[in-house]
Amino acid sequence: MYPDSINSLIESFKFLPGIGEKTAERLAFSILDLENEQIDLFSNSLKDAKNKIHKCKNCNTLTENDLCFLCSDSSRNSDTLCVVEDSKSVFLFEKLGMFNGKYHVLDGLISPLDGINPEDIGLDRLLDRIQKKEFKEIIFAFKPSIEGETTSLYIKKILDGFNIKITRLASGLPIGADMEYVDSLTLERALNDRKEIE
Amino acid sequence: MYPDSINSLIESFKFLPGIGEKTAERLAFSILDLENEQIDLFSNSLKDAKNKIHKCKNCNTLTENDLCFLCSDSSRNSDTLCVVEDSKSVFLFEKLGMFNGKYHVLDGLISPLDGINPEDIGLDRLLDRIQKKEFKEIIFAFKPSIEGETTSLYIKKILDGFNIKITRLASGLPIGADMEYVDSLTLERALNDRKEIE
Repeated sequence: MYPDSINSLIESFKFLPGIGEKTAERLAFSILDLENEQIDLFSNSLKDAKNKIHKCKNCNTLTENDLCFLCSDSSRNSDTLCVVEDSKSVFLFEKLGMFNGKYHVLDGLISPLDGINPEDIGLDRLLDRIQKKEFKEIIFAFKPSIEGETTSLYIKKILDGFNIKITRLASGLPIGADMEYVDSLTLERALNDRKEIE
Repeated sequence: MYPDSINSLIESFKFLPGIGEKTAERLAFSILDLENEQIDLFSNSLKDAKNKIHKCKNCNTLTENDLCFLCSDSSRNSDTLCVVEDSKSVFLFEKLGMFNGKYHVLDGLISPLDGINPEDIGLDRLLDRIQKKEFKEIIFAFKPSIEGETTSLYIKKILDGFNIKITRLASGLPIGADMEYVDSLTLERALNDRKEIE
């Protein structure tokens, strides 16, 4: 019913997560209102993103260069390594601007139920890097979940022989949370991880 | 902070209605997971939609051809003309499949407050068409709003001399609506437009 190019556009938007038929139709029609320069930017950046972006050969963060902007920044503290589950986490932390160490991006988290085993998440490259550099602390910054927990414990076990402090992000009550809406696991963790008031 | 092509992609997604910074970032990253063929389809359909789509020279519906699929369909009832405010309405009606007449798409609705006056919505082409063809009924299928009302009344006045039945879509309670949540204007209209039970 729709003209062909609108149909293709609707199909294209449906490739994206969380976008169903109705939203795809709405977005497809909105494209017709864009300026030619906007269309060109959109169209070209789709191809560029796919063609130019790859993983930093050192830390695995998405980049257009050999080394990402973090690995090529010599002013960063190279004592501390923050291990994350994907590149998005790196950008999230960098937006916060509260961490000045180095990062290492895994290819996801261990999740046997989804068929993702320790050998699938690029641990060899992490280990390789840890063996070559002398990090004083390694921070696991995974999402608080069974997969995050499993991955933390697994890597910690591998690193048993190294003289490195290993930490994870604190779990507990999110700031501003209403006690009655906090789930029981979070509450349990907040209780177990309670901190002395100094 | 992001690689250039991701930044451009985020900017591009932000051109779209209802898509803010966060969603644009999420969508931009999801592009990296698409197959090359999907990227090509997406990228090309953006340009195609802009380059190939124009308005049907007869009824103004978006099409890639001279005449849209409706105007080139001789099996449709040419006694009835449904006047709508945009092409989307045409596709909406066609999906329902309950109308078999012809359409005419205006360039929006009269809205003096937004600076859209009668001469801006392509009424001359509508009038031209009505003068040339002998329609028995013209249906105004505009959204129920001041703009819709104004446009209906304005066109009806122009058509005063013609021997054509002029109708509008019924307004009233949406099916399944809870009485207490129906707004007062809708309720008033539903009362005024009440139908005898036969």
